[in-house]
Amino acid sequence: MKDRINVGIIGFGTVGSGAARILINNADIIKRRLGIPVVLKKMADLDIKKDRGIKLDKDVLTTDAAKILDDPDIDIVIELIGGYEPAKSFILKAIERGKCVVTSNKALLAVHGEEIFHIAASKGVDIGFEGSVGGGIPIIRILKEGLAANNILSIYGIINGTSNYILTKMTNEGRAFGDVLSEAQRLGYAEADLTFDIEGIDSAHKLTILTTLAFGTPVKFDNIYTEGITRITPLDIEYAKEFGYKIKLLAISKMDNGQIEARVHPTMVPNEYLISTVEGVFNAIYVAGDAVGDTMYYGRGAGDMPTGSAITSDIIEIARNIITNSVGRVPPPAFQLKERKELKIKKMDDIVCPFYLRFMAMDRPSVLSKISGILGEHNISIASMIQKGRKEDGAVSVVMMTHEAKEKDVQGALAKIDKLPVIADKTMFIRVEGEV
Amino acid sequence: MKDRINVGIIGFGTVGSGAARILINNADIIKRRLGIPVVLKKMADLDIKKDRGIKLDKDVLTTDAAKILDDPDIDIVIELIGGYEPAKSFILKAIERGKCVVTSNKALLAVHGEEIFHIAASKGVDIGFEGSVGGGIPIIRILKEGLAANNILSIYGIINGTSNYILTKMTNEGRAFGDVLSEAQRLGYAEADLTFDIEGIDSAHKLTILTTLAFGTPVKFDNIYTEGITRITPLDIEYAKEFGYKIKLLAISKMDNGQIEARVHPTMVPNEYLISTVEGVFNAIYVAGDAVGDTMYYGRGAGDMPTGSAITSDIIEIARNIITNSVGRVPPPAFQLKERKELKIKKMDDIVCPFYLRFMAMDRPSVLSKISGILGEHNISIASMIQKGRKEDGAVSVVMMTHEAKEKDVQGALAKIDKLPVIADKTMFIRVEGEV
Repeated sequence: MKDRINVGIIGFGTVGSGAARILINNADIIKRRLGIPVVLKKMADLDIKKDRGIKLDKDVLTTDAAKILDDPDIDIVIELIGGYEPAKSFILKAIERGKCVVTSNKALLAVHGEEIFHIAASKGVDIGFEGSVGGGIPIIRILKEGLAANNILSIYGIINGTSNYILTKMTNEGRAFGDVLSEAQRLGYAEADLTFDIEGIDSAHKLTILTTLAFGTPVKFDNIYTEGITRITPLDIEYAKEFGYKIKLLAISKMDNGQIEARVHPTMVPNEYLISTVEGVFNAIYVAGDAVGDTMYYGRGAGDMPTGSAITSDIIEIARNIITNSVGRVPPPAFQLKERKELKIKKMDDIVCPFYLRFMAMDRPSVLSKISGILGEHNISIASMIQKGRKEDGAVSVVMMTHEAKEKDVQGALAKIDKLPVIADKTMFIRVEGEV
Repeated sequence: MKDRINVGIIGFGTVGSGAARILINNADIIKRRLGIPVVLKKMADLDIKKDRGIKLDKDVLTTDAAKILDDPDIDIVIELIGGYEPAKSFILKAIERGKCVVTSNKALLAVHGEEIFHIAASKGVDIGFEGSVGGGIPIIRILKEGLAANNILSIYGIINGTSNYILTKMTNEGRAFGDVLSEAQRLGYAEADLTFDIEGIDSAHKLTILTTLAFGTPVKFDNIYTEGITRITPLDIEYAKEFGYKIKLLAISKMDNGQIEARVHPTMVPNEYLISTVEGVFNAIYVAGDAVGDTMYYGRGAGDMPTGSAITSDIIEIARNIITNSVGRVPPPAFQLKERKELKIKKMDDIVCPFYLRFMAMDRPSVLSKISGILGEHNISIASMIQKGRKEDGAVSVVMMTHEAKEKDVQGALAKIDKLPVIADKTMFIRVEGEV
């Protein structure tokens, strides 16, 4: 019987600091739950001089990750450096040596998760990645275990705090995208590469992981349609309000007749949906299952301590497996590897939903009949419309909510409409959730 | 290596039907996750003639629970008859015979949970009770595992759907308590014994379980202050709206300097709190942890399929333990039994929070000075006040929000105030969450 679990953390950045702080400050509560202590034996980072406000024994800190990977006493390796390399090599080396792994590296898992899962399974080690999606929200565990009785039907996630912060500020204060973005950067809410946040890439990484777990299928990150929030304007947010909606960057994953929809894009969400009320840097993930019905999970989607909470919960879970000699008891992708099925991701062209359309039209009497004519030819019917006062240069906003329409039809119609001489600017479209 | 997990369900009521339906209809998804099938080998109920719309083989149904308890091939016994006896005897017999147990019996666990947990531990069997709180919301697993890295700070739960349904209807439609109650009964939302729902007892049962798990301490159900929603009037709901609050039946559990607050009562919740937006029969549990910060979990708190989802998730978890020979890997009360501490539950008298007070006063000039004088003597300071127009019989509502005050002081002041000749009726008080 082991009398302790030794862990080594590679990466002493924000998340690494959070995990270390929790392992040290909450050592007592962890031991009371687990029965034996979890010991942070080594912490590797290229920069060990920087003061992170955490007291570690001198022999704990090292600049050499190999000191962790090569230490036969370390049971669990925690990779928190992010990015593809050397993170992947570290993880594979740890697995190779029979060590269990915990990581919050969503980009790595989205792109190389399948390979890592299979190697981990073949070596009989656990890999925990609760910190990769939704910060402290235990959504991975919920999909793998809490809702295990269900055929998952759909997932709608606000899983990028920076985007949600920006959209919330734009909504509540009427400010422009660029203005709020600069503020977010100043406050340190944005990731190292901002593109990942505002272009939806971070959300798509996370959605790749959620979709893999929910539907028992390998998912290629590249197959997820990804659109960010950079083209959203205060004007559209105002119109959304008038129609009774909020604009959110949603990561959507649905089962539809044996095919999967998996897409990230700005979405108009009805005010009555609980997820529309999720503000600021908070994350929320709505999950519907065939037995459980509607559920939602809410919390801080990033930050040292919330993500540290998720990472430490993985450490505790894997520690329990090590103690009871049951490593491998839950397969990393929620399904037994041999029981997974290759499911097709629906082409974006085939997606069906209501659309919000904002045309910038020269205010001529004929314009509406021309627009609605083209929409009609493409099987798009108008549910409601707002036309606002004349602008200085003669162009007005004509704003519509359509009934359910096919993406391909909408794109086809807009391509034609945008070529009309009475149309002053590229037409804005936003996909809509719920019934119009 | 086992090639199947055999389960027997005792109790073919609403929840039993849900669990059976899931085990049958979702057998494929369960096998794909677990690796081997879960087989519903026996189903016991006194009434086996009733058609529940579920096809079972003839030899599955029995009127004799002993057919399940005595069957050496049954790995997991699922107790879904509710109540104290014979439920408790069935569970203890199953444990005695080395079988793992799943139950959603919150009343039984609230009162006899400690005894059952200890016996289960001594016999080395698992006991799952995800279905006992929050229906399909995996809140038990979240407290035991998802947030295991945290010192839990507080829990606020809407954990009785019937009460929330009644309060929601009263709020949205301005209807009286009795009127909505009759409707809830007609629609079948109410439990067998309605008192359990509307008097807060069901919430208190569930809070006993949550508090036990959250704080690693045995909790006596009798020590939980319990107050229902029967005295809430449409008038108070209106005033709450004017102050920017909703009235919810909250189950509250907090750590406060080594003591625990554990109480169920109607509470005024600020509109800005996400939990205030939880409507109808839905449940939501807010949990704050020292690492994770604010989190919330939302879903259907009752019903055959949501509760069946929770029960089946327990079956799958225990099946994984049986397969990997790791039964007992997570202790039922979230902490190792020997690592638990007896924590005191704070006396209700010592609770501190803002209060909503509604006085029915004869409209005499002196009344306000008399009320505020007595409040002042009891260290209660007024934050804001509404006084509405004269009623026919000469009494008017004088409505106040106080700053934080001690329960004992408030009760003392109200006892004095209610004896004043200028006071026409018993004063209404509602505890308030958040800063006033």
